Amino acid sequence: MKHNYLNNVPLSEAKSTFFSRLETVGFSGACETVPVTDACGRVIKNAAYARICSPHYNASAMDGVAVDSRITFGASEKTPVTLLPDDYTVVDTGDPVPDGCDAVIMVEDLIEAGDGKLQIISAVYPWQNVRQVGEDICMGDMAAPSGATLTPSLCGALLAGGITEIEVIKKPLVGIIPTGDEIVPPTGNPGKGDIIEFNSTVFKGMLENFGALSKVYPIVPDKKELIKQAVEKALSECDIVLVSAGSSAGRDDYTSEIISSLGTVLIHGIAIKPGKPAVLGEAKGKPVIGIPGYPVSAIVIMDEIVGDVVSMYYGRQRREAVTVKAVLAKKIVSSLKYTEYVRVSLGRIGNVLSAAPLARGAGVITSFTKADGVILVAQDCEGIEAGEEVQVRLNKPLWQIENTLVITGSHDPLIDEVSDFLAGKGAPFRVSSTHVGSMGAIYAVRDGLAHMGGIHLLDTKTGVYNKSYIEKYIPSGNAEAVRGVGRVQGLMVKKGNPLGIKEFADIKNARYVNRQRGAGTRILCDYLLEKNGISPDEIDGYNNEEFTHTAVAALIAAGNADAGLGIYSAAKMYDLDFIPVCNETYEFLIDKRFLDNPMVKAFLEVLYSDEFKARLDEMGGYTEV
Amino acid sequence: MKHNYLNNVPLSEAKSTFFSRLETVGFSGACETVPVTDACGRVIKNAAYARICSPHYNASAMDGVAVDSRITFGASEKTPVTLLPDDYTVVDTGDPVPDGCDAVIMVEDLIEAGDGKLQIISAVYPWQNVRQVGEDICMGDMAAPSGATLTPSLCGALLAGGITEIEVIKKPLVGIIPTGDEIVPPTGNPGKGDIIEFNSTVFKGMLENFGALSKVYPIVPDKKELIKQAVEKALSECDIVLVSAGSSAGRDDYTSEIISSLGTVLIHGIAIKPGKPAVLGEAKGKPVIGIPGYPVSAIVIMDEIVGDVVSMYYGRQRREAVTVKAVLAKKIVSSLKYTEYVRVSLGRIGNVLSAAPLARGAGVITSFTKADGVILVAQDCEGIEAGEEVQVRLNKPLWQIENTLVITGSHDPLIDEVSDFLAGKGAPFRVSSTHVGSMGAIYAVRDGLAHMGGIHLLDTKTGVYNKSYIEKYIPSGNAEAVRGVGRVQGLMVKKGNPLGIKEFADIKNARYVNRQRGAGTRILCDYLLEKNGISPDEIDGYNNEEFTHTAVAALIAAGNADAGLGIYSAAKMYDLDFIPVCNETYEFLIDKRFLDNPMVKAFLEVLYSDEFKARLDEMGGYTEV
Repeated sequence: MKHNYLNNVPLSEAKSTFFSRLETVGFSGACETVPVTDACGRVIKNAAYARICSPHYNASAMDGVAVDSRITFGASEKTPVTLLPDDYTVVDTGDPVPDGCDAVIMVEDLIEAGDGKLQIISAVYPWQNVRQVGEDICMGDMAAPSGATLTPSLCGALLAGGITEIEVIKKPLVGIIPTGDEIVPPTGNPGKGDIIEFNSTVFKGMLENFGALSKVYPIVPDKKELIKQAVEKALSECDIVLVSAGSSAGRDDYTSEIISSLGTVLIHGIAIKPGKPAVLGEAKGKPVIGIPGYPVSAIVIMDEIVGDVVSMYYGRQRREAVTVKAVLAKKIVSSLKYTEYVRVSLGRIGNVLSAAPLARGAGVITSFTKADGVILVAQDCEGIEAGEEVQVRLNKPLWQIENTLVITGSHDPLIDEVSDFLAGKGAPFRVSSTHVGSMGAIYAVRDGLAHMGGIHLLDTKTGVYNKSYIEKYIPSGNAEAVRGVGRVQGLMVKKGNPLGIKEFADIKNARYVNRQRGAGTRILCDYLLEKNGISPDEIDGYNNEEFTHTAVAALIAAGNADAGLGIYSAAKMYDLDFIPVCNETYEFLIDKRFLDNPMVKAFLEVLYSDEFKARLDEMGGYTEV
Repeated sequence: MKHNYLNNVPLSEAKSTFFSRLETVGFSGACETVPVTDACGRVIKNAAYARICSPHYNASAMDGVAVDSRITFGASEKTPVTLLPDDYTVVDTGDPVPDGCDAVIMVEDLIEAGDGKLQIISAVYPWQNVRQVGEDICMGDMAAPSGATLTPSLCGALLAGGITEIEVIKKPLVGIIPTGDEIVPPTGNPGKGDIIEFNSTVFKGMLENFGALSKVYPIVPDKKELIKQAVEKALSECDIVLVSAGSSAGRDDYTSEIISSLGTVLIHGIAIKPGKPAVLGEAKGKPVIGIPGYPVSAIVIMDEIVGDVVSMYYGRQRREAVTVKAVLAKKIVSSLKYTEYVRVSLGRIGNVLSAAPLARGAGVITSFTKADGVILVAQDCEGIEAGEEVQVRLNKPLWQIENTLVITGSHDPLIDEVSDFLAGKGAPFRVSSTHVGSMGAIYAVRDGLAHMGGIHLLDTKTGVYNKSYIEKYIPSGNAEAVRGVGRVQGLMVKKGNPLGIKEFADIKNARYVNRQRGAGTRILCDYLLEKNGISPDEIDGYNNEEFTHTAVAALIAAGNADAGLGIYSAAKMYDLDFIPVCNETYEFLIDKRFLDNPMVKAFLEVLYSDEFKARLDEMGGYTEV
């Protein structure tokens, strides 16, 4: 088995090597001339100078009459001045002020005096109510500097300045070549081992945001000669070429070798995570970039490298990321081998902007869909403690983040459903929910890192849910549990219950899939084990931990496990059999400061509504508390 | 002369009346189904749930061999375990883990032992190096909530979840009808009285930013029946109709009447400035909006009203404007009749974010092209003092504003030219220059509201420029004048000098155009008047003030005035005759804190370069100092 190693070049060094080469080979955008009426959003090459003044004649600024201001001098209530028909010209706003006139009297200030005569009781000064030539733009003024992006108002100003056509930089065309034997076009029904090709769609969207056009080529299997042909074709048709997947150093990874044969590989392997196995190369004066196959790695390379390549094409500085300071909600451990890009969700809890790290696997695209921002953990940093201040690069506008109801705690699909009801009603905020289990809710609410969180914590001594935990862990009394739902917990097993599981104790004979430590369902599992006198060691799969009910159900449906504890709605979703174990009380723990918060109130209002009750009935397994 | 009055309804009341009506008539967007691969940027109607898990099979997370983890238990350096060819399956990243296997050993951890045998010295635990079914997305999970805008990564997540097509809200089509007898399509050579129609281009660009499509109809003259026909046609083809100009209550303003005849006018006249003469109406269940003709008024109505209409169509809350706190650099006086929208330029000067009000005329589109933000002065507020803290709605990203070299002071076209050189070189900052005259520079730099400013202040006693002014007005010594250029000042007169002006004193016999108070050129004028024993009262046009050399030149070229003081380059630009009066020293006054500021240094570097000297020679009238 072939095995090569990648280099591990720091990002800044990788960029400077790569971009120096692109500069040397003169990589930059060509120009085209377009009508200014269609130029909005485009980038101009050279400064544009107004060709005419705006206004280009003396224009009336009001509806009224144009006069020579001198004839109005001395007009007052006591000594009104009468204008004869020859003394004035009726003008509307925008009309030229006739030669010999230098002011306009507003229609409101005119008194009709018969026979076309008009009376006025105050004078106008020279050029009053007249937009003199060049008031807005003077011929010869620079209307837009080199490299400007044409905003709507800038296009207006260019047209006002008599510029009808303008030279703009052509949008770069980026060729995207998806590669891989196992890759298939998007489908709702992939075969086992088929990997759905969605990276090119992600790239296309990102490129559009960068200001580039893209062309997605057909999927090429892992055959060196075929990929090489595809790269050559793309090089002849595009300004920038991206080869998706095959950028690492494994058996079927050809990107580096192919770029070498057509041009030069400058970097292979960058000291960032995710994103390490990238190839930065140049061929025929154009950048050719090998993008890692894992979506999260790919997005990081698109953002860090390809975004800058497009900026260079346009001859401009890369836009700087907007950053904010936030408080880290959960410890991050990081390797000294790389700069790490940790995706976080953000929310304002009172005075604190809280940053909660999301899943870090390179394959987890949902960590990007949920990410409000990214923390860069420097290569020389081993980690960051919870509660420390961190700098977060924003992916979303801050106003959206500021208007976020943060729910951190036990997973239940009803949270997504309530959020969706709210979104459908056009609620002026969004809901961000993180699944960290019931104990996670207690800590997050106690520490002011969430507005609220779902909890279902069984006090095994009293059989009462939640109360004793809250008293123990939040002695300050700053949080309160409010009514949620009743739920049926049970064992999920494959349809038809092939192992004949009847009660909890039967999991001894099954491959189990557990929930993470701190989850209410985990605590229930531990309680039931103890009650049945079973040691965790006796359970095959006790350490196989998942974070949500649906994840447990998915693994049982897939055959990775035979049984797991969870709620009825998850079993129903995956067409699993369900053996009820107990009814539990699922409540929402709320920071008392936020009991009257409009977002919290709106959330509970939906939850308690009849309309939503119908939705819960449909999902199944919920009882009113 | 017909004269009607507009109403003056507060904005919030106008909006609530208008949007209630649109809600009553059920105004909202229809849906269409599109492939997810083309759905980036679109808005979905209903929540999307994953149809399959991602991964949808147990996938190897590494290149290596798949095994049953149990056969590896106990492996250590002292007790290596040997894998026979039947014990393992070679897998690449992404390959399915075969049935019977539950872990992958990385290729790096394998020792080849001949005959296809492999040795390992550490065990793998169950599901190690395997991306289990649903690791990223579980079937049934909500992948995107109702009303979500599909980002690139969200499209990726939908595809990963087996969703290939999705219902999105159709982009609204907005019909734009430009009206007016005097309106002509964009041209570089308009006739007298012709008004170049550029508002539709501004609207088109703004609508694209709002997420709407637009259709610009041909220009319709001010004939009621023709405009009505155009509105009817647009109503049959579009979702939203905008009538550009004719929205006031003047003689040729038909919009309100036409909307009344086709539907209902809900509001005519809003208590905002600019933007007052707007018409908000509804016909055939669609919004029909009369937009004021003045570009700045039009932009305010587009932003405040039409943006919200598009949001309502999409069933979402309007994006909130991003606001920052800044310090007002110059007093604003405001009317109690309206809420005023004051455009400002922004820049960070040390610790202070400074907001400088721009020209306030409704016809001045350049006030929007230069605007970094807008201050809303409430209706019940008579004004805001310089130095007060103000809330600014941002038009541009804050990082761009933070990286701005703020030059406030005397006008010279060379500032734009240096800025353009910098932009052409890809400088990582922009230059914002405001023309407030030399004394304005002194105050702005003294008060920490600008990094630097151009000054040319003649001490009439000593004949020395600048020094005594700086000593007098900035006794702290916190600012320093650095070398700029020498310039020739002179009288600009019409080509051929029809009035035979020979020296400054001859302006007594001409219509003069002056510069604003505080301008170095104004001080020069006053000095020359005194020296020649002429009183300002004797000068026709002494009170006709302009802010730039080019504006003075433009008025002389247009015949509004016969003579004005200015620099040679402005006269040359307008093909005027130029009668030299004196050589002056134009320097840059710099806040000493910023002498080493990289932006200031980069600016001066260009100014002093040979390359730029060639440009100055081309412009003419500059001498080295």
